[in-house]
Amino acid sequence: MKPSWVRKSVRTLKAYTPGEQLRRAGLVKLNTNENPYPPSPKVAEALAALAVRNLRLYPDPLCRDLRKIIADLHGVAPDQVFAGNGSDEILALCTRAFVEDDGTIGYFEPSYSLYPVLAAIRNVRGVGMELDEGFGWPSPGPGPGSLFFLANPNAPTSNLFPKGVVEAFCREYPGVVLIDEAYVDFAAVNGMDLAGKLPNVLVMRTLSKSYSMAGIRLGYVVGSAGLIGALFKIKDSYNVDRVTQAVAAAALSDQPHMRRNVECILATRERLSKALERRGFFVQKSETNFLWVRPGAGAAVELFAELKKRGVLVRHFPGRRTGDFLRITVGSDDEVDKLLNALQAAGAAF
Amino acid sequence: MKPSWVRKSVRTLKAYTPGEQLRRAGLVKLNTNENPYPPSPKVAEALAALAVRNLRLYPDPLCRDLRKIIADLHGVAPDQVFAGNGSDEILALCTRAFVEDDGTIGYFEPSYSLYPVLAAIRNVRGVGMELDEGFGWPSPGPGPGSLFFLANPNAPTSNLFPKGVVEAFCREYPGVVLIDEAYVDFAAVNGMDLAGKLPNVLVMRTLSKSYSMAGIRLGYVVGSAGLIGALFKIKDSYNVDRVTQAVAAAALSDQPHMRRNVECILATRERLSKALERRGFFVQKSETNFLWVRPGAGAAVELFAELKKRGVLVRHFPGRRTGDFLRITVGSDDEVDKLLNALQAAGAAF
Repeated sequence: MKPSWVRKSVRTLKAYTPGEQLRRAGLVKLNTNENPYPPSPKVAEALAALAVRNLRLYPDPLCRDLRKIIADLHGVAPDQVFAGNGSDEILALCTRAFVEDDGTIGYFEPSYSLYPVLAAIRNVRGVGMELDEGFGWPSPGPGPGSLFFLANPNAPTSNLFPKGVVEAFCREYPGVVLIDEAYVDFAAVNGMDLAGKLPNVLVMRTLSKSYSMAGIRLGYVVGSAGLIGALFKIKDSYNVDRVTQAVAAAALSDQPHMRRNVECILATRERLSKALERRGFFVQKSETNFLWVRPGAGAAVELFAELKKRGVLVRHFPGRRTGDFLRITVGSDDEVDKLLNALQAAGAAF
Repeated sequence: MKPSWVRKSVRTLKAYTPGEQLRRAGLVKLNTNENPYPPSPKVAEALAALAVRNLRLYPDPLCRDLRKIIADLHGVAPDQVFAGNGSDEILALCTRAFVEDDGTIGYFEPSYSLYPVLAAIRNVRGVGMELDEGFGWPSPGPGPGSLFFLANPNAPTSNLFPKGVVEAFCREYPGVVLIDEAYVDFAAVNGMDLAGKLPNVLVMRTLSKSYSMAGIRLGYVVGSAGLIGALFKIKDSYNVDRVTQAVAAAALSDQPHMRRNVECILATRERLSKALERRGFFVQKSETNFLWVRPGAGAAVELFAELKKRGVLVRHFPGRRTGDFLRITVGSDDEVDKLLNALQAAGAAF
């Protein structure tokens, strides 16, 4: 193969590494922030009601029924809603819709580790905006830029930035701000109203976390019709398939189910936080379905290995700002008990 | 909204228009080359067997089981196979993996009308290679280029280019050639072996046509591990969802069902071709599940409107090379009868 067949920026690219998706039975999987509870029973009903013979037909390229449900949920017009094949697709589309070749993409440092990779794939400059020592909002702001990925609550740090600060930032930012609210259903406050109020703001949600639908790939974003229209212009023609449109609509239509699951997770989050603090861990105040913790003694990377040995998978992000910490998904009570037992077994070093 | 928030090339972009997806009941839909027959019963079985509770978990980011099935089907290694959210996603990924900012993307003129739009979205030069008057292989070839989308059989013209000519072209072409074999299951010959033989060649297939799975979005591409690896580096982490991985595997595992449906369509294609020729139409020799036809009298665009008025939807592509023609999907025998009746009713003008 001639190296020149592959674009230079791709040859040198360090690809994004998703959390391990091991297929080992009996593993306690607390590494990719999946929801421990099943999706709404309405999802199974929608799947059972699906006319399989109609899979021969293309899906609605505009996702009209689904976007209407989302629009009604948030009190906006359907032309202010875009649906994607997971929110990852929406992030990537934004890098192509809102950034010139000499533009820049901003994000917090640390934040979702996909953001810098997306800047590299788009072959533009990525600029990390360093959070303060406690992972709080940095000052001063980032200055100029084309697109800012503002995760709120932030991942992997689990904290929520104050809404007033976010709004002030968006008003000043010269480009488009995408507020990535993947975890916001687990937080006390959300910023969806900013999408209607500020013309340069998009607010993104996903069905992967609070709706227990990571397997199905559905993200959506709300904003001004102008920005949303740009995403429609460059998307793949039929980016969301028939099954996904049907089951996503079903999941979104059952808000009480989602809220009940979230309440369970919040209770377990509280219990796990306290248990870890009692063991001497530093636990960042979480507004998500995961905890960002630093062992009181011992290295995070070693604890990661000890837990894995005992069948409990959590996430460790090497790096200056993140290497001392672990990110632990809040699983079911049973999974959390197993984690605590594994910690106990790992011994006094942690 | 500030215009500058949207990238200039996107502001000026003319988006791709997929065939109309009307939701009118009773419509005879022969406009988007969908298969008139349902997918394999194994697809319904796979859907019924799906563990809905596991939709809470992310899909396998590497589609290992599905890629193994595809690799076995074509006698290649799994690392020579990439699976995408429809073949549209694969085309778009290729524009980002194999084309520098000053590169060019080639395709036939006329061919799949998405190709020039993909070049525009990638913001690089698209170069149409004019087919000869009978839509045959052009001469001389295109000269330099980074990526060539070689649809074979070609759409909308329905003809198959000779394999020897295609192979000679690929050997000379300085960049990557993607042979888009969306329709090849309806043709006498395919070029899958070129993907193993020539290191700059990718061969792409889709489940949308011969497998009756347009609603599900699954395309795949076979080629050298180096080119395939570049696509993996820049894809969305979880680009193919759990349901799609399961039902695509089921559909691909039932080759006899696919072949039976294809045989039915080939018989109907023969009948429809003859009937249209008897009415004075020019009918291009088809190696696909559609016909490329020119009315013996009257304008194609008017016939399109007459048929639509009578509930039969076909496809008309305005333009110098295509405006005199219609593309008609080979539907079921019943649908084809309705088309012929509508033609009769449209009167002597055509």
